[in-house]
Amino acid sequence: MIMTTDVRRIQLYDTTLRDGAQSAGIHFSAEDKKRIARRLASFGMDWIEGGWPGASPTDDCFFELMRDRAWSHSRLVAFGSTARPGHPASEDPGLARLVACGADAVCIFGKSWDLHVTTGLGIDLQTNLDLVRESVAWLKLHVDTVLFDAEHFFDGYAANRDYAMQVLAAAADAGADSLVLCDTNGGSLPEQIGACVRQVVARYPDLTIGIHAHNDSEMAVANAVSAVSAGASHVQGTINGLGERCGNTNLISVIPVLKLKMGVNCGVSTESLRKLRRLSTFVNEMANQLPWQHQPFVGQNAFAHKGGIHVSAVRKASHLYEHIDPASVGNAQRVLVSNQAGRSNILAKLQQLEPDAIVDDAAVVRAVQRIKEMEATGYAFEGADASFQLLLRRATGQFRRHFELVSFRVYDEKRGHDEAPESEATVQVRVNGRLLHTAALGSGPVNAMDKALRAALTGAYPGLEDMRLTDFKVRVLSTKDATEAAVRVLIESSDGVRKWNTVGVSTDVLEATYRALNDAIEYKLVMDQVASEGEQVITDGSL
Amino acid sequence: MIMTTDVRRIQLYDTTLRDGAQSAGIHFSAEDKKRIARRLASFGMDWIEGGWPGASPTDDCFFELMRDRAWSHSRLVAFGSTARPGHPASEDPGLARLVACGADAVCIFGKSWDLHVTTGLGIDLQTNLDLVRESVAWLKLHVDTVLFDAEHFFDGYAANRDYAMQVLAAAADAGADSLVLCDTNGGSLPEQIGACVRQVVARYPDLTIGIHAHNDSEMAVANAVSAVSAGASHVQGTINGLGERCGNTNLISVIPVLKLKMGVNCGVSTESLRKLRRLSTFVNEMANQLPWQHQPFVGQNAFAHKGGIHVSAVRKASHLYEHIDPASVGNAQRVLVSNQAGRSNILAKLQQLEPDAIVDDAAVVRAVQRIKEMEATGYAFEGADASFQLLLRRATGQFRRHFELVSFRVYDEKRGHDEAPESEATVQVRVNGRLLHTAALGSGPVNAMDKALRAALTGAYPGLEDMRLTDFKVRVLSTKDATEAAVRVLIESSDGVRKWNTVGVSTDVLEATYRALNDAIEYKLVMDQVASEGEQVITDGSL
Repeated sequence: MIMTTDVRRIQLYDTTLRDGAQSAGIHFSAEDKKRIARRLASFGMDWIEGGWPGASPTDDCFFELMRDRAWSHSRLVAFGSTARPGHPASEDPGLARLVACGADAVCIFGKSWDLHVTTGLGIDLQTNLDLVRESVAWLKLHVDTVLFDAEHFFDGYAANRDYAMQVLAAAADAGADSLVLCDTNGGSLPEQIGACVRQVVARYPDLTIGIHAHNDSEMAVANAVSAVSAGASHVQGTINGLGERCGNTNLISVIPVLKLKMGVNCGVSTESLRKLRRLSTFVNEMANQLPWQHQPFVGQNAFAHKGGIHVSAVRKASHLYEHIDPASVGNAQRVLVSNQAGRSNILAKLQQLEPDAIVDDAAVVRAVQRIKEMEATGYAFEGADASFQLLLRRATGQFRRHFELVSFRVYDEKRGHDEAPESEATVQVRVNGRLLHTAALGSGPVNAMDKALRAALTGAYPGLEDMRLTDFKVRVLSTKDATEAAVRVLIESSDGVRKWNTVGVSTDVLEATYRALNDAIEYKLVMDQVASEGEQVITDGSL
Repeated sequence: MIMTTDVRRIQLYDTTLRDGAQSAGIHFSAEDKKRIARRLASFGMDWIEGGWPGASPTDDCFFELMRDRAWSHSRLVAFGSTARPGHPASEDPGLARLVACGADAVCIFGKSWDLHVTTGLGIDLQTNLDLVRESVAWLKLHVDTVLFDAEHFFDGYAANRDYAMQVLAAAADAGADSLVLCDTNGGSLPEQIGACVRQVVARYPDLTIGIHAHNDSEMAVANAVSAVSAGASHVQGTINGLGERCGNTNLISVIPVLKLKMGVNCGVSTESLRKLRRLSTFVNEMANQLPWQHQPFVGQNAFAHKGGIHVSAVRKASHLYEHIDPASVGNAQRVLVSNQAGRSNILAKLQQLEPDAIVDDAAVVRAVQRIKEMEATGYAFEGADASFQLLLRRATGQFRRHFELVSFRVYDEKRGHDEAPESEATVQVRVNGRLLHTAALGSGPVNAMDKALRAALTGAYPGLEDMRLTDFKVRVLSTKDATEAAVRVLIESSDGVRKWNTVGVSTDVLEATYRALNDAIEYKLVMDQVASEGEQVITDGSL
């Protein structure tokens, strides 16, 4: 860990809502964007780039929704481009929209790579300089703060250094408050970025110099950090590194690096930093993205220990194998279970679950054996802590079944190409000696099965009414056997207080679903019972 | 792009099979490991670390399977630790296994952070130095090449520089051929790594100095590159950055950075580099991992363009928006379709599909409209090029249906907790005016439906016999509506020559599956027809 005595205040500029929304597979509604913006503001971002007024109805609607914001710290930024050639900046409709949209500041990009000017825009180099100067100057008449994004700056600097610097000069002379150097294609390396930023900082000691990097060489975080070391004081990026192609600089990684490793003040309090993981998760949910399990700092595996040697050492002194305290970013240590792990992991997990339990060696052996058998059929417990906890409870004799399946039957029919299908499920279960037989229609067979099962169980267990299924994933386990392959279903459930994950495996997707659903319900019932008896409850994570 | 005149030969050391196998969720069999090793050898890796003899039956079996290898270039490495304290190295069973396993070289790790010695191992500092020296010396009597991994070197160097250097000296004095500096906890930054490597290289100019980094600060690639810039000439890493916690240095990114950006010779030919994407995909398949779509260099989005401005510029001169030529790493440019894209993307895609087509404006408008409608119900075409191509063909009037669904009915029943379920599907389809009614049992409802549909169609379309479903993914589209939410099914199909992806959306998982299956079959039939008519076929990627 490097701690410097850097006294600069580094500004954080979030562009999740603009550049992040360019990610393949991401579709934010205006309402989604509003929720994310509110969350970013409460986290303490200095700048929140909301979108490009005029580029899409979504962005226009978003800026309208934001008019009544009451942010104490964050400033909302509208993004756009320099004026189009051929008209005075004062008559450019794009610039007018930036001024009218109600943002606190405006960020415009301009070309700084000569080839982009002549080939991309198809104008001469001087005309581009005029566009930059006139656009910034006109905006400065109408808005307080104007940031200038020098697009392709690093490639431009390599190709034609004089011209790239002239573009910055045009923006600076016209009154730009910040010059943001963009590695638009993401191909630059940290040393190159550092050397270049150092030149620009020396030339403009009184302006804020920013960095905007992309991850095409898997170095966006390092590039941002290199720029800060070289004197940049404004870092652009997105939550979880969302963004076009390989994504942007990941603020979720940059923030703890700046704060915990470089000792730099980026305006994020220790308390806010503890919300880092939740911010990451929230944006994943809004973006409808699967979480990146290996994500640095906040991923569910970021502090997960699998190898037996690591696990026993981690139990002795956790900083021996953890580069930061997981709690400082809202994360937690996890001990994984796998066929590599063996006894020491299982023991660690058992003691985490039941700190006061006298650990019975025979139970550990039974658990290891059962895990191996289940893994051989395709189970994986890394993503299904609740199923794993049930397995341990079964092995240690602490589990009693709350209900027993007698049969299920699912029926799904579609008549005609344009007709909606009809799904029906019937379930027979035995609860406390009584045989219950229920049926339900559903929008799809999984929903029908879920409803029929709940209908049978909520009489005996009213706590199940709070429970809902929040995510459902299906994975084919082998691509060799086509549709005959086994599938693994992962279900995430919530009761508004806790969240837990369960797993089921079968060649039949409905049977696999049933198994995961069965565990989800059993886990809820066990937890309710444990809570009512005052035992400590450990779950995958709280909401 | 930086091109230097660095004339060193950088060695590549792959540890996918050892450190990569520590990834959460990864389970390689000995046979899997053999297949991967063969592939790594044919790619041209200098060193392939196969596992830890004695640590698991899988690793022992793997080394047995490798005895008959006939590699011309790559060298197989066995990994292990220094001898245990209390016995002479010559009697250590772990070291004996390393020598006996038949590998070409041995790599052992030893502690170089004083705190790990005293707290983790629980021995005094001098004893650890003796262990390192004696272990290396004994191994050098029996194997040609011994590499020494200095575990936690960077943390150790920061905590107690003298001791960390003494550990290296012990290994070097005993004859180690390489000193590999490990950032075991992944917390170091590139500047720190560079400064430290520079010291070690200066001290041991005649030894190979290596770097082994982890991605806990999202800087593993930058850390490896920084070490190379500082004089390291051996880079350890894994394919796709697999590895414990946040993973190891990703060789898939390091290789093109070294070769294309730094002009460094790492033994990978231009021809091998073109196989980079296939190597990455192969390891994903063996690891049963979903591909990382935004993966630098080789991800399906690495050269994907979504924003309208980018797309029109990319069409003018692709290097304006691409940091390297995608073909140099076996990747390709992709134009994405989304509600942000609009006409210019659709036009680009249409021209890619039908280079000679006279593009009809009304057809483009129809296609854009249809895409927007479908996206509003949850469709996403980024991962389903084949469905998108069918949509364009429909919009341009080039599509005729090969069959029409009249109805399907799926029945799934499970009797008793331990009984296997039974699945049956019936399908009615109209083909060339004939009504066909087929039924099939399957291992699961999806398989039953797939079989019934094929049974109905293969009479008229024998080409379908070659087709198989190779992957099947289900995604819940909104977590708000629990099991009633719409699901998106993505299907990957193959006919042994081509691979294509289709999508279906419905609240009913079976209806969504049917829709994706329907497109998959229609696409195959269209492609067969096109091929027989000599048209150019563009698919997502060849096998």
